[in-house]
Amino acid sequence: MEGLDALFADRVVGTQSSIVRELLAFSKMPHIISLAGGIPAADMFDLEGINEALKVATASGVAAYQYSVTDGEPELRSGIAELVKKRGIKTDADHVVVTSGSQQGLDLVARTFLNEGDTILVEKPTYLAAIQVFKMVGANVVDVEGSDEGLDLDALEKTLQTAKNVKALYIVPTFANPSGSTMSEANRKRLLALAIEYNFVILEDDPYGEIRFEGERVPSLYKIAQAEGKGEENVVYLSSFSKILVPGLRLGFIIAAPKTREKIVLVKQSVDLHTPVLSQLIVSAYLESGRLDDRIPAISKAYGERCGALMKALDTHLGEHITYNKPVGGMFLWAKLKNGMSATKLLKIAIDEGVVFVPGAAFYVNDPDDSTLRLSFATIDAAGAEEAAKRLANAIAKYA
Amino acid sequence: MEGLDALFADRVVGTQSSIVRELLAFSKMPHIISLAGGIPAADMFDLEGINEALKVATASGVAAYQYSVTDGEPELRSGIAELVKKRGIKTDADHVVVTSGSQQGLDLVARTFLNEGDTILVEKPTYLAAIQVFKMVGANVVDVEGSDEGLDLDALEKTLQTAKNVKALYIVPTFANPSGSTMSEANRKRLLALAIEYNFVILEDDPYGEIRFEGERVPSLYKIAQAEGKGEENVVYLSSFSKILVPGLRLGFIIAAPKTREKIVLVKQSVDLHTPVLSQLIVSAYLESGRLDDRIPAISKAYGERCGALMKALDTHLGEHITYNKPVGGMFLWAKLKNGMSATKLLKIAIDEGVVFVPGAAFYVNDPDDSTLRLSFATIDAAGAEEAAKRLANAIAKYA
Repeated sequence: MEGLDALFADRVVGTQSSIVRELLAFSKMPHIISLAGGIPAADMFDLEGINEALKVATASGVAAYQYSVTDGEPELRSGIAELVKKRGIKTDADHVVVTSGSQQGLDLVARTFLNEGDTILVEKPTYLAAIQVFKMVGANVVDVEGSDEGLDLDALEKTLQTAKNVKALYIVPTFANPSGSTMSEANRKRLLALAIEYNFVILEDDPYGEIRFEGERVPSLYKIAQAEGKGEENVVYLSSFSKILVPGLRLGFIIAAPKTREKIVLVKQSVDLHTPVLSQLIVSAYLESGRLDDRIPAISKAYGERCGALMKALDTHLGEHITYNKPVGGMFLWAKLKNGMSATKLLKIAIDEGVVFVPGAAFYVNDPDDSTLRLSFATIDAAGAEEAAKRLANAIAKYA
Repeated sequence: MEGLDALFADRVVGTQSSIVRELLAFSKMPHIISLAGGIPAADMFDLEGINEALKVATASGVAAYQYSVTDGEPELRSGIAELVKKRGIKTDADHVVVTSGSQQGLDLVARTFLNEGDTILVEKPTYLAAIQVFKMVGANVVDVEGSDEGLDLDALEKTLQTAKNVKALYIVPTFANPSGSTMSEANRKRLLALAIEYNFVILEDDPYGEIRFEGERVPSLYKIAQAEGKGEENVVYLSSFSKILVPGLRLGFIIAAPKTREKIVLVKQSVDLHTPVLSQLIVSAYLESGRLDDRIPAISKAYGERCGALMKALDTHLGEHITYNKPVGGMFLWAKLKNGMSATKLLKIAIDEGVVFVPGAAFYVNDPDDSTLRLSFATIDAAGAEEAAKRLANAIAKYA
């Protein structure tokens, strides 16, 4: 290689843009119905509440615009500590790190724990931007079989017995992306015991946990560790305001043991000094307003209805061509095409028919199951779901 | 090592918080005069203009809060392209990447170019958070002698003849941090020729270039490469709104050749998806308002006066104890204690006297010159400068 090409780092050579990011462009085209986005429904944004919070935030004058501390505005960290108390996690402002979105949270923990060549385990399939982050630090990303009930712990135990340098396991235990699965409390306890026994850290990613439309809440791994009085150091809890408030402010957070938190803050210092103060003050004021307590049930109800509408439309128009897991929360429906159809090939035809989705192959580290696809129901109303399903049916008809 | 300690990545073991970040706490204590901050003067923030821009930004409703594209809002990228045209750089929106502050820009370019063990050259002394970023990716950071006229190019050439895997050189060519030095146009041309000859990329960091209180502007390396019609691929230009507008919004940008830009955007995608939309729309509206054209001269004038006041106070109270470079722009005065005094030791006494500064040792990769210190004049008025110099004189008296 010569010139510029010889200068790029290995980690960016051959790296490709995420298909989810690329498909985002379609969500802005009026003739396309997008089931591809991981984007929350803009019609559920509480703009009135945000505008009120903005007034409070800007009332602090210059403080909203000056450099600030790396770990986050103290009042926001307090607000987050209160928020996660409602999820059963006992903490205080000193244990919280504010991140520039949960995506940054993943990058920070990846860099805190993973040397080049260290192994991180992920569920098969899993959130593709997490795979990207872990590969970007040069980690060895190893997938472990998943199911409707989440990670297969027998398979995990087998992997742990043979894999080397396992530093961490990444998991979305509640309403997983893409599979929508939720791990039972019993399995969470067993997972925690394995983390202690084999000494690895569980990166517990919980962006969707609040958006439940059916059934009982399952405690987070972090809460279980606290309740059992052991293993708290083996869990790092990551969450976000993207799905319960708005994503565009890029506001996420991490709860971690003091030693881990200290390292994460050091990494963040070199990565971006701190998250924008204005975004932090807006979210802090919003939390203080108490409006989130009403919003979360409202969003959950809306998403539940939209999910129901999409399932109904799929049953009506595609019943013989696909199977899917019935979601009880989150934003995604995970489906599988029958008769050996390839979702990647179907997407090309579907674009012409005016509907897009994410082929499931994107969510696999290797050996992708190309019959799978992820459908987001968050932004689709009943009429949109009906039309999307019809277009998908047309695409399938043309495929065959 | 056992338990959690065994799990941390090498890059965070032994890493320490930046002394500049730690000293930031003192800037909030009313009894302390801080010359330590790299923080711009809050009394120069154009709050009126920002509030007007905020109104424009929020008028776009949900778009200000939804997920968006990784490379930055198109209208902001256009505004940045216009801004840098005033600095003589010919570009358009498609060549700009919006970053979450210039600090993130450094992280993105570090990860784009540097494998573990690759060499990056820096001026001696240099911006310490840049050293942190390069070490965080495992790079071999090698310093090259600097002077009042910036990087010593003979020393650089010698280093290039022997050093291995030199991928990049990091430089603040105008009003360097901490030394305040500015490289001449002739030297910039020679540096560019060396970059082409030895095939490395120049990371041209230009946060302060607009803040000139004396003398003629020197063209950026990027501009020179464009004017000469060669070497543009060997320069990545980084800048920021932190010093000319406000730092708290964390808004910076990168101008780079198409191939480099593509890689940088991929890294950013995995790092934080995108910079907060609201921050971007505020800065975009502010640029559109045209107010920056008046602000930059106003800030430069104020900083020039403050610099003059600090120099006068130092001459009056500390003349026999220190020497310093006379700054013609930027925010920093680089000084040297006489008679073998240690700035690190002096700081401890100075804190008790109610004044803080950054010991110069922090800005060295190795072999620090502990007689040096960095004094920021940006936030200090004439009375403050007078009092700070008196307190420093008291500290020196106690030191001896």
